Amino acid sequence: MWFKTRVTELLHIQYPLIQAPMAGGVTTPKLVAAVSNSGGLGSLGAGYMSKEQMKEAVREIRSLTDKPFAVNLFIPEPESAPEIKDEMMAVLDGYRRELGLPPGIDASKFAEPFAEQLEAVLEEKVPVFSFTFGIPARETIRALKQQGITVIGTATTVREAVKLEESGVDLIVGQGSEAGGHRGTFLGPYQDALVGTMALIPQMVDHVQVPVIAAGGIMDGRGIAAARILGAEGVQMGSAFLACEESGAHEAYKNAILTSTDDSTVITKAFSGKAARGIKNRFIQEMAEKESILSPYPLQNALTKEIRQAAAKANRAEFMSLWAGQASAMAARKTAGQLVSDLVEQTTKFLGWSR
Amino acid sequence: MWFKTRVTELLHIQYPLIQAPMAGGVTTPKLVAAVSNSGGLGSLGAGYMSKEQMKEAVREIRSLTDKPFAVNLFIPEPESAPEIKDEMMAVLDGYRRELGLPPGIDASKFAEPFAEQLEAVLEEKVPVFSFTFGIPARETIRALKQQGITVIGTATTVREAVKLEESGVDLIVGQGSEAGGHRGTFLGPYQDALVGTMALIPQMVDHVQVPVIAAGGIMDGRGIAAARILGAEGVQMGSAFLACEESGAHEAYKNAILTSTDDSTVITKAFSGKAARGIKNRFIQEMAEKESILSPYPLQNALTKEIRQAAAKANRAEFMSLWAGQASAMAARKTAGQLVSDLVEQTTKFLGWSR
Repeated sequence: MWFKTRVTELLHIQYPLIQAPMAGGVTTPKLVAAVSNSGGLGSLGAGYMSKEQMKEAVREIRSLTDKPFAVNLFIPEPESAPEIKDEMMAVLDGYRRELGLPPGIDASKFAEPFAEQLEAVLEEKVPVFSFTFGIPARETIRALKQQGITVIGTATTVREAVKLEESGVDLIVGQGSEAGGHRGTFLGPYQDALVGTMALIPQMVDHVQVPVIAAGGIMDGRGIAAARILGAEGVQMGSAFLACEESGAHEAYKNAILTSTDDSTVITKAFSGKAARGIKNRFIQEMAEKESILSPYPLQNALTKEIRQAAAKANRAEFMSLWAGQASAMAARKTAGQLVSDLVEQTTKFLGWSR
Repeated sequence: MWFKTRVTELLHIQYPLIQAPMAGGVTTPKLVAAVSNSGGLGSLGAGYMSKEQMKEAVREIRSLTDKPFAVNLFIPEPESAPEIKDEMMAVLDGYRRELGLPPGIDASKFAEPFAEQLEAVLEEKVPVFSFTFGIPARETIRALKQQGITVIGTATTVREAVKLEESGVDLIVGQGSEAGGHRGTFLGPYQDALVGTMALIPQMVDHVQVPVIAAGGIMDGRGIAAARILGAEGVQMGSAFLACEESGAHEAYKNAILTSTDDSTVITKAFSGKAARGIKNRFIQEMAEKESILSPYPLQNALTKEIRQAAAKANRAEFMSLWAGQASAMAARKTAGQLVSDLVEQTTKFLGWSR
C-alpha cells in the first residue's frame, strides 16, 4: 500500500500526511487534533508561543485526540545585538498611524526563549518534535530521543539534509521552493536554496538514508502520488489546510488563499527579517524597497507584530502576513478530516491499494 | 501505456520525451537526430541562428533522421532603441582585456531577424515549431499550421498558458522554476513567475484544454512518472541531455554540470539581459552588482558574445554561460539514445506498461 512507509511506521500514524506547522495561530489545537484523528499527523506551530502557551495548547490537543501529533519550534540563531534603524522605525510608525497605533515599539523581549520552549516539549513528552531554521545541539536531540520523542528536521538543500542526518534526526522534511511560509534554510543564503520540489526530492533521497518528507506545492492526490514516486515517503502540506474549518487563519487570510493564483506569492523578509513566501500585498510591496534597513530575525518580527495584529482586527489583509505556497489556489473550504480522506482517496486512484 | 498521450499523437513520436531546445550550439543536428531516432523529439535551439544557418542545420538533421523534430525560436520583444551604458562597456572591457580581446564591441546587429528565421521554418516545413519569450502574431501561427507544422508554446504561469491556448497553439510547455536556461516568462516580471513544477503543472492542466508538457527539474524516470501523474502528457528535458555524447556543450560546461549540486544554480540577467538559470560562476557573481546598468535583451547578449566565445576557447568556465536546471547534478555521460531508452525503462518501472 502506497501509504505504508517508514514515515507512518516511525510516527505511528495511518497515512504519511503531515499538516505543516504554521506559527501565528493557524494551527489551532482543533486543527492539529482533527488531522491526527483522521490518520495523518497534525502539527502545532509553536515558534512564537511561550512555554506556558505551549503546554496549554498541548493539553488541549490531548483532550481532543489520543493519536500522535507534532510540536514545531524555530531553532534560534546565534545571539546578535538587536539593531533597529531609525529609518525602519519611521517607516513602521507610518503604518502604525494608519492602523491607529501609537508610535514606537517596546522590542525588549523579541522572541520566546528557546530553552523554555524546549522544556515544554520535554515535560509534555510530545510524540513528535519537528524543527526548522537550523539544527539543535547534539545533547538536545539526544534528550528528545531519550524521552521517546521522534525528531523531524527541515532541509532546503541536499547539503542541509546531510547535516541533519549526521545530527541524528529520525526524519527530514525536504522543503521545496514552492512552500509557503518561512524558508527553513540554515546553510548559506536563502536565494541559493530555492530548489523546486521536483528537483529537490530525488536528489535528497539519493543522498540520505533517513526517510524524506516532501513539502512545497503539494495540494492534492496528484501531488502526493508524484512526491511518493520522486522518493518521498510522506508529504507535509500547509496551504491545503489553511482554509480548513478548524484552521485559525483570519477570514481575510482564508479569502486571500482562495482567490490566489499560481503567481500570487513572493519571497519577503519584510514581516520577520527572515525569508518567507506569502501572497503579495501592500506591506510586502512597499517594504521591498526597504530591504537594506530591515532588522534581523526575530527582531523584525517583533517590530511588525502589533501592525499585523491591528490589521487583523481591522480586517485589512494589506498589512497581514498571508503566508501561502505556490499552489495555494487549489485550497478549498472543508473540514480537515474531509481533506485528509479526500487526499487518501485521490492518491489511491493514482497509486492503487496494491502498492 | 503511460507513454501514449495526446503529445505522442500530435507529434507523431513514440515517447512523450522532448529534448529541450538549448540555443548556443548545444543542440547539434547529431543530438537532435539521435533523440528523434530513439523515439523522443529532438529540438534545435535556433534562437541565435541566421536563416541560412537554420536551413543548413535542418538539412543536416534530415540527413540523420526521418523522424519528426522541432525547431525553436525566440519571439522578439517590441523594438526599443538599444542602450549601452558607458559603465557597462567599461566593465565588459575589463573582462575583454583579461581574455585578450580588444576593447569595444560592434553591436550594430544584435539579433538575427525573427522574420527571416521564421522563413527558414516555413520554407523547410519543419515538423514541429516551438517558441518561447512570447506569442507570435495570429497570422504567423495560422501560416505555420497551414504548412502542417505542429506548434508548441512556452508558459511559466497559468495566465500565460491561457493566453497561449487562445492564440491557437497545439501544445504548451509548462516551464517550472527549476528549469535551466532562459525563463520563458512574457507576462509580468520573471520574479513573479518562478513557479515550481510541482505547483505549476496541476494548476496549468486544470486551466487549459491543450496538452501540457512539463519542464523543470525532470532528470530521470522518477521525474517523468511524477510529471505524468501531475497531469502533464509529456516532459521536456534539457540538463539531462547536456552531458550526452552528441551534445555540443563545451567540455568545461559538461564538467560543470557533472560536478554541480542542487544549489549550484542561480537566475541571472548578466549574459543576455533576460533572466536565465545557470551555474554560478565569477561572471554571474561579479555582474550581480551591475544589474542596473545591464542592456536589455537581446543587446546584452550581443555585448557578451565575444567574451563567452573567447572564454570557451581559453577553457575558462568562469566566463561561460553554464545554463543548467536545479537537478543538473543528476546528469550523466551517455549517448542520447541510451538516455532515452533508460528513461523509458525507468518510467515504466513506476507506471507500468499497462497504463
